[in-house]
Amino acid sequence: MIPYEVILKKRNGGKLNREEIEFMVMGYVRGEIPDYQMAAFLMAVYFRHMDKEERAILTEVMAKSGDMIDLSKIGERIVDKHSSGGVGDKTTLVVAPLVASVGVPIAKMSGRALGHTGGTIDKLESIPGFKTSLSLEEFISNVKKYGIAIAGQTANLAPADKKIYALRDATATVDEISLIASSIMSKKLAGGANAFVLDVKAGSGAFMKTIEEAKKLAEAMVGIGKAHGKDTVALITNMEEPLGIYVGNSLEVLEAIEFLKGNYDEKFFELCIEISSYMVRLSGKMSEKEAKNALLENLKNGKGLEKFRDLIKAQGGDERVIDSPQKYLPISQETLEIKSEKTGYVKDIDTEKIGIASILLGAGRINKEDTIDPSVGIKVMKKIGDKVEKGESLATIFISKKSRVSEAIKTIKEAYTIAEEPAKKLPMIYEVIS
Amino acid sequence: MIPYEVILKKRNGGKLNREEIEFMVMGYVRGEIPDYQMAAFLMAVYFRHMDKEERAILTEVMAKSGDMIDLSKIGERIVDKHSSGGVGDKTTLVVAPLVASVGVPIAKMSGRALGHTGGTIDKLESIPGFKTSLSLEEFISNVKKYGIAIAGQTANLAPADKKIYALRDATATVDEISLIASSIMSKKLAGGANAFVLDVKAGSGAFMKTIEEAKKLAEAMVGIGKAHGKDTVALITNMEEPLGIYVGNSLEVLEAIEFLKGNYDEKFFELCIEISSYMVRLSGKMSEKEAKNALLENLKNGKGLEKFRDLIKAQGGDERVIDSPQKYLPISQETLEIKSEKTGYVKDIDTEKIGIASILLGAGRINKEDTIDPSVGIKVMKKIGDKVEKGESLATIFISKKSRVSEAIKTIKEAYTIAEEPAKKLPMIYEVIS
Repeated sequence: MIPYEVILKKRNGGKLNREEIEFMVMGYVRGEIPDYQMAAFLMAVYFRHMDKEERAILTEVMAKSGDMIDLSKIGERIVDKHSSGGVGDKTTLVVAPLVASVGVPIAKMSGRALGHTGGTIDKLESIPGFKTSLSLEEFISNVKKYGIAIAGQTANLAPADKKIYALRDATATVDEISLIASSIMSKKLAGGANAFVLDVKAGSGAFMKTIEEAKKLAEAMVGIGKAHGKDTVALITNMEEPLGIYVGNSLEVLEAIEFLKGNYDEKFFELCIEISSYMVRLSGKMSEKEAKNALLENLKNGKGLEKFRDLIKAQGGDERVIDSPQKYLPISQETLEIKSEKTGYVKDIDTEKIGIASILLGAGRINKEDTIDPSVGIKVMKKIGDKVEKGESLATIFISKKSRVSEAIKTIKEAYTIAEEPAKKLPMIYEVIS
Repeated sequence: MIPYEVILKKRNGGKLNREEIEFMVMGYVRGEIPDYQMAAFLMAVYFRHMDKEERAILTEVMAKSGDMIDLSKIGERIVDKHSSGGVGDKTTLVVAPLVASVGVPIAKMSGRALGHTGGTIDKLESIPGFKTSLSLEEFISNVKKYGIAIAGQTANLAPADKKIYALRDATATVDEISLIASSIMSKKLAGGANAFVLDVKAGSGAFMKTIEEAKKLAEAMVGIGKAHGKDTVALITNMEEPLGIYVGNSLEVLEAIEFLKGNYDEKFFELCIEISSYMVRLSGKMSEKEAKNALLENLKNGKGLEKFRDLIKAQGGDERVIDSPQKYLPISQETLEIKSEKTGYVKDIDTEKIGIASILLGAGRINKEDTIDPSVGIKVMKKIGDKVEKGESLATIFISKKSRVSEAIKTIKEAYTIAEEPAKKLPMIYEVIS
C-alpha cells in the first residue's frame, strides 16, 4: 500500500478499511508518511467525510497510538464527561464534586483553554497550590481514597491525534465532523472510562454555531462511543450566551463554589443537574429519579461542596478558598463597568466575542506559549431577554496591568445587540441524543 | 496574509485574486510556505476548482516564476504546437518540418515521455548524434538559419509548475482541469510563442478518457491562451487507438520519415494536415486554403522531408537516417509477432495498455531516472474496425535483452477486444475549439 492510493480512494469518495486508516495514521505518526500527503488526505476527508465505521476505526487507531489508561484498578464503573467547549463553562467544577458526593467516582482528565473557550485545568490551577499533573498511581489512589481526581492529560494520550490536530490547524481542515468527533473521542477512549456524557454546545459561543451542526457532531460522537461498547449520551446545549455569570479562571472557580453553596444562575443550575444526573445514571448505581434526588439533596446539605474541598486538599490546593473564595482566590480588585449606550432588551450576545474579550484581558491564550492570568475576567450582568437601561452595566471586567482593556471593552460592546422588543429566552438544553 | 486564509477561502469555494494566488505560488517556490499547506490548498482546488480568471493568473504566475523566453529576435510570429499526450504520437516529427517548409518558422521546446505516453525529445534523441539541448542563442540562430529548431525545455522554464507538479503527483491532485491547464499553459507562455495549436487527446490512450473531459481541458487552455493575448486553437482528437502504426522512439522517427516520403496511415495523415494547416493559418501568412495547398505540395515535392534533413543536420544528427532510416536508426532486429486467438473484428484497443507495453519493452520510463531504449517498440498491425483472422498478427514487438517480453505480450493481448460484429470507425478529429 502507498499513501497515494489511500488519498486517491478517499478523494474519489471511497470508504476506507481498517488497514488503510491504520496505514495512514500510524505511518504519519512514525514519520514514514510526510506532512504533505497527510494534509492532502485530510482535505480529501474534509470534502468526502467518513462514515460511522471509518470514524470508529480512526478513533480507535488514534487512541491506541499512545497510552491506554487502565482505570480497572478503581474497581468501579467510571463515567467521564466532556464539553465541546464554551464561554464561562465551569460545569465540570460543579458536576464533578456533586456526582462524586453521591458515591459515583470521578476520574477525570481535562484539557486546557482552546481558542476562545476556557479549560478546566486552567481554572483549577487558579486555586493556590492546586496540582493538576498527577502520576497515574496518584490519580487512581486519589479516586479510591476521595472518590474524585481531576488531572491534566498525560503527554502520551492519543499522540496521533495531537500530531494530526496540529496539521489540521495549519491546513484549514479542523471543522469536519468526522475529524472533530474522532479527535475528541480518541482521547476519551484512551482515558479509560466506561461511559460518557457529552455536552455538545451550539450557538455563538461554541465551535458549532447551529443546533444542526452540534447534533451531527453529537451523533458522530455517540456513534463512536457505542461502536466501542461505551454507554454514551450527548446533550445539545445552548451556548448563545455565556454559561452562568462569570468568565475567567478564578472567577469561575468562585462561581462553582457559590453554586455548591446554593447560589446559582437558574439556567446553569438546570444544565449541571441534567449532566450530573446522566452521569449518575450511566454509573448504573441509581435510576433517574434516585439520581436527581440524591444530587439535589447533596447540593442542599453541603456534601457537594465538601467533596470539592476534598478534591482541593487531595491535590495540594488551599482549601480556604471553599470558605472565603473572595479572599483566597486570586481575583483582581481592579474592575470597570461596561455600560449600555441605550435602553431596551438584550436581543443577542455574540458569545465568541465575550470569549475573545476574556482572552484580551489575559484569561486565555492567543498562542500556545502564553501564560494565563487567573485573576482577570468578566462578570456578565445582562443575558439574553434581560431589560437594560441606558447607563446600566452590561458587564464588569476584572483587569490587570497586562489586560488589553480598550480592545476588550470594544469587543464586549460589539457582542451585545440591544433591541426595542423583548427577546425570546432560549432553552438551556435543546435535545438529548443517546 | 497567511497561507491558512487562502486555503480556507478556496476550501469554502471562494474566488482567489492575483495577490492571493501569487502569495501561495511564490511563497511555495521560495520555501516560505511548507509542502503540507500547498498540498491542502491543491486538494481544495481539486474540489472547488478555479474559474477562468483564477486560471489565467495561476498560469501567468507560474510562467513568470522562471525564464520567460524572448523569441522576438526571430522577427516573425512564432506558432507553437502542443499535444496533451498519447500513444504513438509522433505528430511533431511530421508537422514541424512540414510547416517550416512552407516558410512558417518553428521554434519548439518539447518534453520527454510522461507515464504511458511518449515525448518528442526522447524520439529525436534516437537519431544518432541529434542534440536536443541547445543554448537559447543556438536555438534562435537555428530558427533564423534553417527555419526550424526543436529543443528540450530549459531547467528554469516555469520552475513553480515543476515544484507544484511534483507535489500534485504525490498527493492525488493531478487530474483537475484548472491545474492541468495552468501547468501546460505556464510552460507554453514562458516558451514565448505568439500563438498555439493544442492537440487535446481523448480516449483510452489519453489522460482525458472522454471527449467531454478533453473538451473541458481544451476550453480551459484556450481561455488561458486568449486571456494572455495569444491566438489559441484546440483540436479534440481521437486517442482510442495508437496514432499511426508505430509506438517506440526510433520506430516513430522511421514512421515520420516515411510519412514525409508519402507513405502514411490515412487517419494520421488527416491529423497532421489539420494541425499543420492551423499552425500556418495562425502565423498569419496564409489563408486556410493556401495553407493546405502549400502543405500538400511540400509533402509531395519532398520539401517537407528536406526540412527534416535540415533539422537533423543543424542539431548534429546523422542525416543518413533520412535516406536509409532502417539502416541508420537504431531499430531492433529481434521481433516477435503477437497473434490473434480468434477471428473477428477489432472492437476496442485499450491504448493505455499499448503504451504500458511499450514501457515494458523499454521504450518509456517507469521512474524518472530510467533510461530509454530507442530501438524497441511496437508495430500496430490491427486497428479498430479491422477484420482479423485467428493466428493473424495483431502487433509486432521489437525487443531487446532488457525487454519484459512476456508481460508486454500479455498486456498487448489484454488491450485488444475482438468481437464478432464489425466495429464503427471513429473520426480522427472530434471538434475544434477556438
